[in-house]
Amino acid sequence: MTEHSELRSWEVLEGLLAEGDAERVEEFLDGLTPAETALAVSRLDESERVALLNILSAENVAEMLVELPDEQAADLIEDMPAHDAAEIVDLMPADLQADLLGSLGAHEAEAILQAMPAEGASRARGLLRHSEDTAGGLMTVRYLAYRQSATVDKVVSDLRDNVATYSDYEVQYAYVVSPEGHLLGVLPMRDLLLARGEAPIHEVMITRPVRVTVDTPLERLIELFEDHASFIGIPVTDSKDRLVGVVRRTAVLEAAGERADSSFLKISGIVGGVEYRSMPLFLRAFRRLSFLAPNIVLNMIAASVIALYQGTLQAVIALAVFLPIISDMSGCSGNQAVAVSIRELSLGLIRPTEFLRVFAKEAWLGLFNGVVLGIMLGGVAVLWKGNWALGLVVGSALALNTLVAVLLGGSVPLLLKRLRVDPALASGPILTTVTDMCGFFLVLSFASATLSRL
Amino acid sequence: MTEHSELRSWEVLEGLLAEGDAERVEEFLDGLTPAETALAVSRLDESERVALLNILSAENVAEMLVELPDEQAADLIEDMPAHDAAEIVDLMPADLQADLLGSLGAHEAEAILQAMPAEGASRARGLLRHSEDTAGGLMTVRYLAYRQSATVDKVVSDLRDNVATYSDYEVQYAYVVSPEGHLLGVLPMRDLLLARGEAPIHEVMITRPVRVTVDTPLERLIELFEDHASFIGIPVTDSKDRLVGVVRRTAVLEAAGERADSSFLKISGIVGGVEYRSMPLFLRAFRRLSFLAPNIVLNMIAASVIALYQGTLQAVIALAVFLPIISDMSGCSGNQAVAVSIRELSLGLIRPTEFLRVFAKEAWLGLFNGVVLGIMLGGVAVLWKGNWALGLVVGSALALNTLVAVLLGGSVPLLLKRLRVDPALASGPILTTVTDMCGFFLVLSFASATLSRL
Repeated sequence: MTEHSELRSWEVLEGLLAEGDAERVEEFLDGLTPAETALAVSRLDESERVALLNILSAENVAEMLVELPDEQAADLIEDMPAHDAAEIVDLMPADLQADLLGSLGAHEAEAILQAMPAEGASRARGLLRHSEDTAGGLMTVRYLAYRQSATVDKVVSDLRDNVATYSDYEVQYAYVVSPEGHLLGVLPMRDLLLARGEAPIHEVMITRPVRVTVDTPLERLIELFEDHASFIGIPVTDSKDRLVGVVRRTAVLEAAGERADSSFLKISGIVGGVEYRSMPLFLRAFRRLSFLAPNIVLNMIAASVIALYQGTLQAVIALAVFLPIISDMSGCSGNQAVAVSIRELSLGLIRPTEFLRVFAKEAWLGLFNGVVLGIMLGGVAVLWKGNWALGLVVGSALALNTLVAVLLGGSVPLLLKRLRVDPALASGPILTTVTDMCGFFLVLSFASATLSRL
Repeated sequence: MTEHSELRSWEVLEGLLAEGDAERVEEFLDGLTPAETALAVSRLDESERVALLNILSAENVAEMLVELPDEQAADLIEDMPAHDAAEIVDLMPADLQADLLGSLGAHEAEAILQAMPAEGASRARGLLRHSEDTAGGLMTVRYLAYRQSATVDKVVSDLRDNVATYSDYEVQYAYVVSPEGHLLGVLPMRDLLLARGEAPIHEVMITRPVRVTVDTPLERLIELFEDHASFIGIPVTDSKDRLVGVVRRTAVLEAAGERADSSFLKISGIVGGVEYRSMPLFLRAFRRLSFLAPNIVLNMIAASVIALYQGTLQAVIALAVFLPIISDMSGCSGNQAVAVSIRELSLGLIRPTEFLRVFAKEAWLGLFNGVVLGIMLGGVAVLWKGNWALGLVVGSALALNTLVAVLLGGSVPLLLKRLRVDPALASGPILTTVTDMCGFFLVLSFASATLSRL
């Protein structure tokens, strides 16, 4: 690739696409790492993407999609005719098929499934049934299983005969099953290495291995891998205890990372799925508006408190300077408590019922920080206007409202969790609306009460 | 544990500590999973923690610390006399020693190292030198290495002889080294299984394996494991290409998850380290204040724009209702762009120099969303006051300021990254200060210009 060394990967790709040389495009993509492929594809414009999908064979597109993050892969194929997309999806490994189809809209996914060969479609449907954050959604269906009566030698010779096929299975264990498919035991490769060749594997296997069912949620899987630090994978069974897959530690860690990533985005107001700047403008704009539009309504409701006190404000116009400060600072204090609660919830350090614990832990902190911030803001008011009463009004309003904000911020995520609403999504807007209303009310009602001294 | 079944784990632990029966405390902790241990210990109060550390033997405390998150473990031992802490730390595995000491203050860590036996202290110091987010900081020093001349049979018999010792090594590869310790190759366990016993391992090994040095940063490790989907670990060498450790995929994924977790906390204003509600009140209060106190100063600077326009505000008091709305909405729009930029930076989808790309991608979006939000807010103003000019002033100010906010929000993280400041930490305060000032200025200067019509 030295000839292109000064060009960025997507510039090279754009050039090759313009030339229309299928073979060189294919060769170029083969030389890229998955991260480089993702970057290069993300930088192509709409027409270049269409050109890329047209120039590559279905096999090559399938290979490329496997390397891309699910959302990006879904983005690429969602505008293709269902029949073409089905041909490509059918060439992908079953668990990745399900991940990709799960990232498409229900309608697009169904159209592709309809166009796939019956057997492949029914297998993909089976995997798609499982929600993403369960063992069924995270498991791989590429694993090794042997009957209990097989000998160590027979297993080793099967491994020898199928080295090529098994090479991307990440084989570290083989599983032992009954003729009905029930999970009987697990055979670590290392134990196989150390065992007598003629021994039947049911003598060598670890019996009653830790297992999960397809419904086991991500939280529980994280715990299990934490509790069993040496496990690389855990077998997954269906409701009848038949082995149906293996969930690997790496898949669980990746899902946990993705969840932290998505909490990070949601709490910042990116809702409705992750955003890449390579997505179409209107998709990005609408997703962002779906957070902003309800939020502006909530903001108006909160600000209506100010409208009720226009007389007071007119009399002491300096108060208008302090209203946005109190709104913003209470929001910040509350969001700190929200973030700590969301994290403690996801780590299992707190249960959604423990309101009292949160109140106890946040009350003193809110009081302390409220007093510190209140003295700062009140002090500035006194220095600016030389009016002690004004300082007392804004300072004590901020102090009280900080207490309200941390109590509310700490407890709203627990409440939402109990109501099965995603706390990262809804905590912020609820919190800021209530603390804004409360903050405006405190300043303006304190001011009304002491109007003669302001 | 049926006798305690109605009690929570920490209530049981509190009871046993009160009874002072060392053996039963030990037995109880042995029965807990790491997650349960972390939860139970986090709920003890100060005096109960002291009692727990006193009642357990050094060996048992070391075992318990290994199970806890680093921050929590550091919290437990930081108040112990250095000599007692050193005795405990010396009993922990070397890489976990370094993680724990790294979570302590520099002063406390040094005191403990001074009190440790010379050999252990120098090994721990060696590991502590590496920053947490590099291969050196993430690697384990428990790995298997054999000389190139050893035979497959010799390696297998060594494995057989040391099953117990190696059982917690997560052995999937053995490494082949020269007499000087240089890394020559890697031996997957599976290949060992399939090879002839009398073959020297240098004939079986994979030569020139992918390797990293102790300085390789986390970003690069994430990429490497992505590019090599089947790798479980990558050998780590020092500057002279001698094998010094192995960095496992799980350690890299965990570190990546922790980083996402910490971005999530930082962007919400939890700075200076993660917060658990079990930490002392004043530590939590001061850490939160270290974000809030500078923030209130920035808020005052922004609000000072309002003070400049008191005359306008007095004339059209209704404007005071819209100021906090414009401040809050612009902050929300900007934070969305901040979150997308931070994520694209950490995924390597954007370089810190690509300001033009961000501007191009955010400009149309900002304009579109700004117009939508501006029409909403302006419409409400017209409905409320029946004044078209007022609607035009607040609507166009919000529209323009939304554009400013997304352009700024998208580019500030890139700028901070170039200045080597953590974008998750500083983007929010910078963004809201500038957008507040700009928003207040736009509304109030537009209003001043059209005062006769308002």
